[in-house]
Amino acid sequence: MRADIQFVPVDVQVEKAEEKVFVVIDVLRATTTIIEALSNGCTDVIPVVTVDGAFDLAKKLPRKDTLIGGERGGLKVDGFDVGNSPREYTRDLVSAKRVILTTTNGTKALQSVAGCEHVLVAGFTNVQAVVQRCIALKADPVVVPAGGKGRFSLEDVVCGGMMVDLLGKEGAALTDSARASRILYKAFDRDLLEMAKSCEHGRELIRLGLEEDLAFCVQTNVSSSVPVFKKGSITLD
Amino acid sequence: MRADIQFVPVDVQVEKAEEKVFVVIDVLRATTTIIEALSNGCTDVIPVVTVDGAFDLAKKLPRKDTLIGGERGGLKVDGFDVGNSPREYTRDLVSAKRVILTTTNGTKALQSVAGCEHVLVAGFTNVQAVVQRCIALKADPVVVPAGGKGRFSLEDVVCGGMMVDLLGKEGAALTDSARASRILYKAFDRDLLEMAKSCEHGRELIRLGLEEDLAFCVQTNVSSSVPVFKKGSITLD
Repeated sequence: MRADIQFVPVDVQVEKAEEKVFVVIDVLRATTTIIEALSNGCTDVIPVVTVDGAFDLAKKLPRKDTLIGGERGGLKVDGFDVGNSPREYTRDLVSAKRVILTTTNGTKALQSVAGCEHVLVAGFTNVQAVVQRCIALKADPVVVPAGGKGRFSLEDVVCGGMMVDLLGKEGAALTDSARASRILYKAFDRDLLEMAKSCEHGRELIRLGLEEDLAFCVQTNVSSSVPVFKKGSITLD
Repeated sequence: MRADIQFVPVDVQVEKAEEKVFVVIDVLRATTTIIEALSNGCTDVIPVVTVDGAFDLAKKLPRKDTLIGGERGGLKVDGFDVGNSPREYTRDLVSAKRVILTTTNGTKALQSVAGCEHVLVAGFTNVQAVVQRCIALKADPVVVPAGGKGRFSLEDVVCGGMMVDLLGKEGAALTDSARASRILYKAFDRDLLEMAKSCEHGRELIRLGLEEDLAFCVQTNVSSSVPVFKKGSITLD
């Protein structure tokens, strides 16, 4: 097994993606939100790139069973049912519901690997469970940090580094970028919350009054859910 | 001043590049070679993306004053005068000569910022001199690691992190990617040669019998030369 990480988002050539498992990470907050929603009984999450696309899709689905969620500029979009804070995706709200989700970075990162055979969704909250699934799949993991508007995102690479650290302990060979992500994880693992508060995206969320999301998103291994993205929909298998 | 680093090569939009100074780094080996050639009296280096482009350009220039250099697969190209090892670019060979250079990654990285107002060429050998030039220019430095075939290159990011460390000491604000590169530099600064030997590109050069190049390329601050890339040509101003 060889573990790799992309440091910034790049489109994956599906034909070269055989025998790989892509692990999409957008710690703040899309993938943490997806993990939380599915853990709380949401039937499936459909990631959509644009706001218009989310409204259009919602019109085709039974209104009472569907929630439209996500953000632009970090805030809930007018007319959406719910924003992009994982804390909003409670069992009361999401149980037995489908969620249409559009966010600035996370849903784009998911689209970049749409069509690949194995795509998992990870955050700090489910790292260990995702690592175990990668091992069970016997495929080479490629971590795909969502980034921020196409740029490097520290929090996603640090989370990827935590995955790489665990994969290394399971005997995986590491690419140079994977080694680098592990070094970055080790530099911050004693205080992930401080890392989240200090990074560019975290500071933006604090400015928006969403600091409580940071503490939620850096909880490690509190979920055993492994969301799988296949045929346009994310489910727990 | 704000210091930034691109973790993988991306094309720069020239119109957004005002008030920035781009610093291209391909430690193993193109930018180290350029620094060495110019330090040894070469008049200018013309980076060219393709082998055919190098031969075509050479036909238009006085043969006795021109050297064609570079590599494909790490090795000198048939018909070239010289390869891509900085150790080949001695004063005897290059003094008063122009060098046409084409390499797998470095010359592409240079082309990605061609047309930007301020583009400098750096390696471990001239980091301090490049930092001083950035400060004198009063422009925000953006480090551009050459990468390896579009991928993350540890040795270039570590060298960029050394630059960032010095810029930080001079009061520069750091982006998240710049902070990350500094952490990676600090993880390897006690033994840069070991880092070079262990990274993907270094291992490839060792396989090719070019291990001596690694020790040459990780010498720090042995040159005060600051190559400037402008209008298609790299000179010492």
